[in-house]
Amino acid sequence: MTYTLVLLRHGESEWNAKNLFTGWVDVPLSEQGVQEAVQGGRMLVDAGILPDVVHTSLLRRAISTANLALDAADRHWIGVHRHWRLNERHYGALQGKNKKEIRDEYGEEQFMLWRRSYDVPPPEIELGSEYSQDADARYAGEPIPRSEALKQVLERALPYWEQAIVPDLKAGRTVLVAAHGNSLRAIIKHLDGIDDETISGLNVPTGIPLVYELDETFAPTVRGGRYLDPAAAEAAIAAVANQGR
Amino acid sequence: MTYTLVLLRHGESEWNAKNLFTGWVDVPLSEQGVQEAVQGGRMLVDAGILPDVVHTSLLRRAISTANLALDAADRHWIGVHRHWRLNERHYGALQGKNKKEIRDEYGEEQFMLWRRSYDVPPPEIELGSEYSQDADARYAGEPIPRSEALKQVLERALPYWEQAIVPDLKAGRTVLVAAHGNSLRAIIKHLDGIDDETISGLNVPTGIPLVYELDETFAPTVRGGRYLDPAAAEAAIAAVANQGR
Repeated sequence: MTYTLVLLRHGESEWNAKNLFTGWVDVPLSEQGVQEAVQGGRMLVDAGILPDVVHTSLLRRAISTANLALDAADRHWIGVHRHWRLNERHYGALQGKNKKEIRDEYGEEQFMLWRRSYDVPPPEIELGSEYSQDADARYAGEPIPRSEALKQVLERALPYWEQAIVPDLKAGRTVLVAAHGNSLRAIIKHLDGIDDETISGLNVPTGIPLVYELDETFAPTVRGGRYLDPAAAEAAIAAVANQGR
Repeated sequence: MTYTLVLLRHGESEWNAKNLFTGWVDVPLSEQGVQEAVQGGRMLVDAGILPDVVHTSLLRRAISTANLALDAADRHWIGVHRHWRLNERHYGALQGKNKKEIRDEYGEEQFMLWRRSYDVPPPEIELGSEYSQDADARYAGEPIPRSEALKQVLERALPYWEQAIVPDLKAGRTVLVAAHGNSLRAIIKHLDGIDDETISGLNVPTGIPLVYELDETFAPTVRGGRYLDPAAAEAAIAAVANQGR
């Protein structure tokens, strides 16, 4: 008896395509991102993996990815849960900024520290500024961050993992989590027991379902899980690593 | 203090366009239906009505309508509940059949009885047949019908109204119900206290939000509610009445 967990990173968004730091800014999928989501759904069908429930962030690019993938997989009718704890990392004052410009302005070392260090968050976003979420109704009354490193993402995502996702798995449901590069890295770090240093080299490709079979202690039966299109995943991981170049 | 309820009938489906009895067959929206859903979402924005939670049937045309309308209204992130009790009327053995052919075969009187009588269901669908749902995973273990008149729709929708929708309204949430011609007629019959005869003349246009303000006894403050585009609603109601001609 194992539990089945499927992680799906949203496809390309309009800001991915423009090379901007996005974080909690609620941009839509690009046309390519839409296609990736549909393809992801078809991969689930081909693999015979049928989600019984889906968990998403509160951001449009993850929600649309779930909607499109589940429709393509004929599982549009399953139960839905959404929470900000699955949101992308909050990129603080970098949200809305061009990645290349930030790199040119602050230098490679600072740029990589903000992008990839485990525990150095970017400067906090100014409340009331254009790309801040402090007045956004969906977060009203919630203890939302003003900037995060992966460490803070993990600290706010794990309670949701324990309290919302694990109970669904325990009930025997195949769970789809449609979320973001960094919220998924946080879950993967936890599942695979990856140390703070090694996690910085781990990238999650977009649109390719990553399937974990978990034992009764919620440890992966195969470390790292398996991508439903391993060759495409490998190529995409290399491409993500080159972002901002 | 009033409660706000928004009813939204899905836009045109591929089978509406082909003039087939659809019922529980899970057909997608047509391109026109997609546009109607987006327009419906824009009407919510223009009226300043912001749903806090959405309830849908288990059928793709209602689910897609909700997804598209909420995305257009920037409310894609709200909570979601789905249940077969909000499904369209089960059209029994008529599912998948052409409306005009049924009318020619059985005559106007029988045709109108099946379409519009309050309590005469069409013949039951054969289990295991092409357009039956008895092997569909989404209904596993549920007491689903094999044919329904509006009376049966009301009997299975009302428990969901009382147990799932009313509690959301009581909590002060603006509730969107994205569903079907007959499941919405059932709710409207209940809310407005329409008798069994009069309800047969009531049509709900597609894609135009119908807003009810309900008092503390859940009685409408204005009988019949208000459509967000009254002129378009009137024209559409006339068109629906001519279906199958």
